[in-house]
Amino acid sequence: MDQSLSFITFATADLDAARTFYRDGLGWEPLLDVPDEIIFFQVAPALVLGLFEQEKFRQDLGSGSGSPGDGAGVSGVTLSHNVSSPADVDATVRHLESIGATVLLPPQPGPFGGVYHGHVVDPNGIGWEIAHNPGWHVTEDGDVLLG
Amino acid sequence: MDQSLSFITFATADLDAARTFYRDGLGWEPLLDVPDEIIFFQVAPALVLGLFEQEKFRQDLGSGSGSPGDGAGVSGVTLSHNVSSPADVDATVRHLESIGATVLLPPQPGPFGGVYHGHVVDPNGIGWEIAHNPGWHVTEDGDVLLG
Repeated sequence: MDQSLSFITFATADLDAARTFYRDGLGWEPLLDVPDEIIFFQVAPALVLGLFEQEKFRQDLGSGSGSPGDGAGVSGVTLSHNVSSPADVDATVRHLESIGATVLLPPQPGPFGGVYHGHVVDPNGIGWEIAHNPGWHVTEDGDVLLG
Repeated sequence: MDQSLSFITFATADLDAARTFYRDGLGWEPLLDVPDEIIFFQVAPALVLGLFEQEKFRQDLGSGSGSPGDGAGVSGVTLSHNVSSPADVDATVRHLESIGATVLLPPQPGPFGGVYHGHVVDPNGIGWEIAHNPGWHVTEDGDVLLG
């Protein structure tokens, strides 16, 4: 797993309030805005901030993974590391487990966005998603294209 | 406040475990490693991940700001937006407050790294630090220089 981060995602209780704040208040331009689901903003070269409706955030992590903020494994924040194939997802999750990560969601197709992904937590409870996302591309200039 | 993120910082309970995991386990190269305080890794062009010893994370937010994860205002995660002067910190925090952010820490010199900073939370409780950090530079290629 190389030293890179592709997305940072927060479970958000009120996506409309988030839209009003970031888009209307700050004037930021969404990369993609799916009402009642998720809003993406590019916030650094090649890096996307995702504000994810909290119930769908939970669904994305599958069953048995607890709730954002309830201390049962899901913190409400996800750092995503994107790789180029489903096989790379499998291999990266296995490697992370071998160095001490806890697997929260074994690699599998996700419910949103056509991704194949697995979730692990590091020794401090920081959550990483390892994902293959065929709709995510980064240009030579570092701009992110989604969908 | 332009559409950019400079640092993502987590309060970590066990910084040595973090070092073992990211540096020794994954082979990532720290940008800066201050034992018992903080470890920085560059994880995207111009973007730094900070793993901050949790007690010092609390100190950095000053008094009265609650504890990471205790629900009293500090989530244990900070998104940092760096600006070019202390005056820009003041103006940006004022602007954020005007569009609905809650000011957690009014702009002031911070206890670490020579920064001048303020902290706010967005309508969903996501924490943003607005900072002027004279030791932080980004090269034309997007590489981050610290210290």
